[in-house]
Amino acid sequence: MLLEDVRNSAFDIGDLNQLKLDLNSTQPVDVGEYITQLPKQDRAIAFRLLNKHQAIDVFEYLPAEVQEEIINSLHDVQVAQIIEAMSPDERAELFDELPAGVVKRLLQELSPEERQATATILGYAEGTAGRVMTTEYVRLRDGLTVGEALSKIRRQDEDKETIYYAYVTDDNRTLMSVVSLRQLLFTFPEVLITDIASTRVIKVRTEMPQEEVAQIMKRYDLIAVPVVDREERLVGIVTIDDVVDILEEEATEDIQKLAGVSGGDEQPFSSPLVTLRKRLPWLFGVMLLYIGASSAIAPFQETIKMVPVLAVIMPLFSNTGGTVGIQTLTVTIRGLGVGELTPQDTFKILRKELQAGLGTAVALGLTMIMLSLIWAPPQERWVSLVAGTVMATNTLVAVTLGTLLPMGLKRLKLDPALVSGPLVTTMLDAIGFVIFLTLISTALHIFHLKA
Amino acid sequence: MLLEDVRNSAFDIGDLNQLKLDLNSTQPVDVGEYITQLPKQDRAIAFRLLNKHQAIDVFEYLPAEVQEEIINSLHDVQVAQIIEAMSPDERAELFDELPAGVVKRLLQELSPEERQATATILGYAEGTAGRVMTTEYVRLRDGLTVGEALSKIRRQDEDKETIYYAYVTDDNRTLMSVVSLRQLLFTFPEVLITDIASTRVIKVRTEMPQEEVAQIMKRYDLIAVPVVDREERLVGIVTIDDVVDILEEEATEDIQKLAGVSGGDEQPFSSPLVTLRKRLPWLFGVMLLYIGASSAIAPFQETIKMVPVLAVIMPLFSNTGGTVGIQTLTVTIRGLGVGELTPQDTFKILRKELQAGLGTAVALGLTMIMLSLIWAPPQERWVSLVAGTVMATNTLVAVTLGTLLPMGLKRLKLDPALVSGPLVTTMLDAIGFVIFLTLISTALHIFHLKA
Repeated sequence: MLLEDVRNSAFDIGDLNQLKLDLNSTQPVDVGEYITQLPKQDRAIAFRLLNKHQAIDVFEYLPAEVQEEIINSLHDVQVAQIIEAMSPDERAELFDELPAGVVKRLLQELSPEERQATATILGYAEGTAGRVMTTEYVRLRDGLTVGEALSKIRRQDEDKETIYYAYVTDDNRTLMSVVSLRQLLFTFPEVLITDIASTRVIKVRTEMPQEEVAQIMKRYDLIAVPVVDREERLVGIVTIDDVVDILEEEATEDIQKLAGVSGGDEQPFSSPLVTLRKRLPWLFGVMLLYIGASSAIAPFQETIKMVPVLAVIMPLFSNTGGTVGIQTLTVTIRGLGVGELTPQDTFKILRKELQAGLGTAVALGLTMIMLSLIWAPPQERWVSLVAGTVMATNTLVAVTLGTLLPMGLKRLKLDPALVSGPLVTTMLDAIGFVIFLTLISTALHIFHLKA
Repeated sequence: MLLEDVRNSAFDIGDLNQLKLDLNSTQPVDVGEYITQLPKQDRAIAFRLLNKHQAIDVFEYLPAEVQEEIINSLHDVQVAQIIEAMSPDERAELFDELPAGVVKRLLQELSPEERQATATILGYAEGTAGRVMTTEYVRLRDGLTVGEALSKIRRQDEDKETIYYAYVTDDNRTLMSVVSLRQLLFTFPEVLITDIASTRVIKVRTEMPQEEVAQIMKRYDLIAVPVVDREERLVGIVTIDDVVDILEEEATEDIQKLAGVSGGDEQPFSSPLVTLRKRLPWLFGVMLLYIGASSAIAPFQETIKMVPVLAVIMPLFSNTGGTVGIQTLTVTIRGLGVGELTPQDTFKILRKELQAGLGTAVALGLTMIMLSLIWAPPQERWVSLVAGTVMATNTLVAVTLGTLLPMGLKRLKLDPALVSGPLVTTMLDAIGFVIFLTLISTALHIFHLKA
């Protein structure tokens, strides 16, 4: 909250004492942002003004490249302290980004337990529950009383990511039940925890994709969910703060893929080269598709020459059909993304989309007829009837594709957002244009034969 | 988790005892979903199989229209029990949806405290912190010791939404500091809470928009945030489970507006009529814009007649330019949505987009030249140079509009997602076509003069 003050203070006029005070009394995330936006050469200086506790907290909020800079500028002892104090999931994330040599050196400096925790997490595939979990949770053995459990929790070091849930296991670490701190506080100390703990534990497997973990925690309003391995042994927990980030990331990915920005989320401040790399392939994809579409349109040049109003009608046609397709596509992909839809709903949704689509088709078809009547010179007015019919057909094709394409991909266990918006609009263009021009040239043909 | 079993069991074969067992041992959210998908006449029957505690929990997970059905089918005493036990924020949400007469009757049946809590929340505008907060939080007076605080927390009724944070106030309920249950547990009982509570409290005002509250809680990794009124008096808290829902809702709204689906989030299973109402206005908007665009294109019919390859080139042109515009627009709107961008960043982002845009412009321009060389008959090959140039220009216009339009709206404190994708593509089409056709017809004119 004090970020603005900090930003406008001290640094440039060299009053480091004031800056030190400010930085140590500001929220870590704000200090992290402040340090990140400093010129490169000032970042390490500012970081060294932090006291030990604040330094550890701030470090977790720095982007990977700034973390690496700081690591390179500090003494090994300081680095070791910070890395040791990080939570295992944050540490695993950092190690993912660092050069292998640096990671190896840092791993050696960790305490055996922390090294073990990091190795465990790094052993799971990226984007799974195992990778985003933390190993710092409260575990209780199943024979304890409530009083014993509470004093065990009180003796835990402060590192545990949440102490608000404790997980009860047997001798083999098999997850038996869960008990909340709230339940423990509201119960007499001599009661056995097994008498109050809930055995209906919602849990996830290490290999579950992170977005499914997030959906489960959202659905059941959980602050933390236990992660178990194939043998049902407890290996970690995923906490709500990670879930919030995962949900936002997934939403950003969906929204960007729909717009034709590929490969995960592009940050607004990504470099122009990253931006190009994420966007150009889609643009060339659109063009490539168009080569196909255009070779289908090219033979009709004669037709267009004879009825030039077509060149006025066709863009409207293409834009409106594309919009219908994207509307349906977006509602479907988002529904799949937030878990409101499953491939089992395909026909239910298709029916509803076709019902709404029929209304849309009639409305757009009639509008198209009116508009082309206005635009066309008298001898070309007959075109408007064809235009209206094709507009209506194209609308129905659009809602069908917008529903079936993502649903089909999901059923094949592929990412439904693979069919991005530009892809669908281009397909719709090609289909619509070819039908339209074929009909018109057929009509011309018949008409000329008659003339 | 047992939902599938429940679905396939009991109900149709009339084994209500088994169903009763199942429903009372299943997670409330799953039971809520099961009841919702039942035929109308069976919902109340299923609901009455729930024991009191489960009924209260399940009720909160039902959609508003099913809640209303249940209310109408139960005895007044049962309804009163359920409504009394709901958390005040959920209750306010329900009352929002119910007819005024029903709300009045229900309000009278509430206990004075619960009535007061509901009235407070309903007094704030929809979509603000005051409306999504709950009034069930733990408040401590500032003179207490840790031991006294803990036994006060133990005496709280189990209703409080979270007991993991306690808020310390003075006699006037002015928020002074916050202390976590964790801190209390880790401290000796005789210490004063004022000695360990943090006075750097992150708090929000009642009138803050809910999406800003969500962004703040996400930024600072909070499970709950206190809500204060203008006089800094504590009036409620917003908890993380609401934030997760708010963030998803906001993401859905952004994604749908970009696709031209208006008026908040359309559910996949909305009725076809709702679907039409949310989508048709955008389609007509697109068409309306096109009337403008087309009256600009219409005068060029002669030109198109003379150079029919234009009709092949123009759709490619339009689709590619539109895609570039939507890519930029999406990254900008999403950046604003998740709080990574502010209007202050406008020129920084515009510079970056133009740098990337220049690369895109060159790539697409050259491709356009090549493609139109292939498509055009020999006497029309000169068109390709114009097409390439206009393609490149249009790309730069696209990234500029995609950045400036949402940034400008945000600066004016309007919703940046008001400029949806279809709007931008249509604008780009109009601009591109007019430039293109003007250049071509000018060239034709000069060429013919020479000939």
